[in-house]
Amino acid sequence: MKGEIIAVGTELLLGQIVNTDASFLAAELAGLGISVYYQTAVGDNRQRIKEVFRLALERSELIVFSGGLGPTEDDLTKETVAETLGLSMVLHEEWAEHLRSIYLLRGTPMPANNLKQAYIPETALLLPNENGTAPGIYLEKEGKTVVLLPGPLEELKPMFRDKAVPLLRKKTAAKAIVSRVLKLAGISEALAAEKLAAHFEGANPTVAPLVGSFEVHLRITARGNTRKEAEELIAVKEREIREVVGSYIYGQDSDTFAGVIGSALLARGKTLVVAESCTGGRLADLITNTPGSSCYFLGGYTVYSEELKNKALGVEKKILAGYGAVSAETAAAMAKNAREKAGADYALAVTGLAGPDGGSPEKPVGLVYIGMAGGGFVKAQKFYFRGNREKIKGRAAFEALNMLWQELKSV
Amino acid sequence: MKGEIIAVGTELLLGQIVNTDASFLAAELAGLGISVYYQTAVGDNRQRIKEVFRLALERSELIVFSGGLGPTEDDLTKETVAETLGLSMVLHEEWAEHLRSIYLLRGTPMPANNLKQAYIPETALLLPNENGTAPGIYLEKEGKTVVLLPGPLEELKPMFRDKAVPLLRKKTAAKAIVSRVLKLAGISEALAAEKLAAHFEGANPTVAPLVGSFEVHLRITARGNTRKEAEELIAVKEREIREVVGSYIYGQDSDTFAGVIGSALLARGKTLVVAESCTGGRLADLITNTPGSSCYFLGGYTVYSEELKNKALGVEKKILAGYGAVSAETAAAMAKNAREKAGADYALAVTGLAGPDGGSPEKPVGLVYIGMAGGGFVKAQKFYFRGNREKIKGRAAFEALNMLWQELKSV
Repeated sequence: MKGEIIAVGTELLLGQIVNTDASFLAAELAGLGISVYYQTAVGDNRQRIKEVFRLALERSELIVFSGGLGPTEDDLTKETVAETLGLSMVLHEEWAEHLRSIYLLRGTPMPANNLKQAYIPETALLLPNENGTAPGIYLEKEGKTVVLLPGPLEELKPMFRDKAVPLLRKKTAAKAIVSRVLKLAGISEALAAEKLAAHFEGANPTVAPLVGSFEVHLRITARGNTRKEAEELIAVKEREIREVVGSYIYGQDSDTFAGVIGSALLARGKTLVVAESCTGGRLADLITNTPGSSCYFLGGYTVYSEELKNKALGVEKKILAGYGAVSAETAAAMAKNAREKAGADYALAVTGLAGPDGGSPEKPVGLVYIGMAGGGFVKAQKFYFRGNREKIKGRAAFEALNMLWQELKSV
Repeated sequence: MKGEIIAVGTELLLGQIVNTDASFLAAELAGLGISVYYQTAVGDNRQRIKEVFRLALERSELIVFSGGLGPTEDDLTKETVAETLGLSMVLHEEWAEHLRSIYLLRGTPMPANNLKQAYIPETALLLPNENGTAPGIYLEKEGKTVVLLPGPLEELKPMFRDKAVPLLRKKTAAKAIVSRVLKLAGISEALAAEKLAAHFEGANPTVAPLVGSFEVHLRITARGNTRKEAEELIAVKEREIREVVGSYIYGQDSDTFAGVIGSALLARGKTLVVAESCTGGRLADLITNTPGSSCYFLGGYTVYSEELKNKALGVEKKILAGYGAVSAETAAAMAKNAREKAGADYALAVTGLAGPDGGSPEKPVGLVYIGMAGGGFVKAQKFYFRGNREKIKGRAAFEALNMLWQELKSV
């Protein structure tokens, strides 16, 4: 079944809100085995809503609208859909009664335009709204299915799942679509694509690269007559992919890189401390985004000033003066000292130039040293990162995590 | 001028990512006085990209694409746009050289498919990408303007603002539209909306609330025959708004809360150190996102474990044992000790429960104490925040900044 999503609302066209309705609906429809080829956003304008609706009727069997169901003059979706399909609007007595009872409870008279929300296209089904006053609509006509949902996500979400999905399930039947996302670290998107080129060709399952921040994500999607059949197709493809890039795969689906590393620390009974200069807290922040990170993460020293590198971490002044704050020696000393001071098993340290100012020909913006200390070793590695301050901070924190991950995989 | 936005990427159609490119571009285009009537999302499919592009060429003068410019086989936007317009692809020698130099610096050979990114449609202008390898494209043909931008927002945003806007500005000319965003901290969106209700009604200038994280942003947009005329309308409206909520306004447009606070520290010749428990580095990260923050930010102690609160910060064991790690006493001691240890003028400290686990009836998840120390004072304040771990961390870091801002405003 081919589906299509149309979001109605001038605030979308002005960029005042992000179209989270579309991403929610897209994921839900994919889960139902409905292929969505198009998403459209259009303003609160009768003629243009009609135009995109007509186009959708030509190319899709299911059209899901979000937004434009409220009580104001601007809310046009329901009326325009009915008009386009040649259906007249009829009063839904029960919903009218329900609206009146809400206002009775509030003790305020119901504004007259509110009753507009109780009118629905003839032959349509009303989908009750348990979180607002605008009901949804489900209708079928000439082989097309049209679903109208309210714009606010907290109203749309439960209405779609509880009211619309049971109706749609009957129409899609049979075929199942299952997706799995494999997550890779330490490989560029281009290199992954080159190694996996042959796998990107297949039709079932399909394999597609997704953009992850500093990571590569690969989505495998399989269709089958049953969920089990689709899952088996995925399992075969995953094995093939693992043969090629298995050493880069750190997890899947909702896994995060910092979370997987945290689990590895926990499994080994090891603790971690960090010492940050140019990442300025980003590394510790990433690590502590994982619930339960307090079980293995002791904390961090954000030593932004040279003085604090000495005072808080005890990095010797002769190292700072002799090699500079941005040097392999300083990175190594930060890691070594942080590990000892905190009594941790591992320490990561980052020092570098995040820019935009402060670079020099010998030490340009983007130059970063990452240090690591563990039982019996201290080391530091040099990197050059491109991009703005935000990107350099993010990339440096990522590469620090990657250094620890490589170590944990080997022990 | 009529504009239209087309986002390309199967991950959008599967709901794996939210179309933040579209909302960013929509707001930017509105600011340029370009009316956007349609936004479309389409998958990585040559035929369907062509189909939506042809439709867009019929109804719009400017078409802005995002996504599908990368090095993989799946990245089809550039090639499909060229094909539809009957343009052949030519190698952009400079960008090819630039790509090779990046790999030379990294010391790894460039994957062959990477060179695909250096091909552009004949007659097109290449928009350099300073945060990635895929360049953007600007081209004009038969009265239509087409702009191609990379999908990742951190690449798209600076490229659009720095490279595409100057070119687009020449085309829009005539009537001027000017926008200003006022940024407020310490007031809820609902309260701001209530206080400013009357101002949301106007047609020129318009005032609209935007969603900021923990902040309230108000965009004033004015149209005039000249830029000066529009700016004067904005100035009048801004004065009116300042009369109502002026005490909450910390800055405007590209200002960030942490950046404005940093400037205030700098202007007063004061330094800052932070001590973080539940925010886990987030507060230091926010502060160090501002270029030049090393001039006033000495660093931070991320004391996640109880032991490190004692060892690194010298919070006395009797305080930790007597009042608990999440207490006003601990927050105050963290701030006081961090200030003294680092030799800073101000210290902020955060301790709390970010969840999802670790809460109790007396100390539920979301309970956070924020401490502050300065010349001659130490204080701590109690907060209850709602939401998930991510939200609690973010809100706690924001409120810590807000506490310092209130202090700086008063001295």
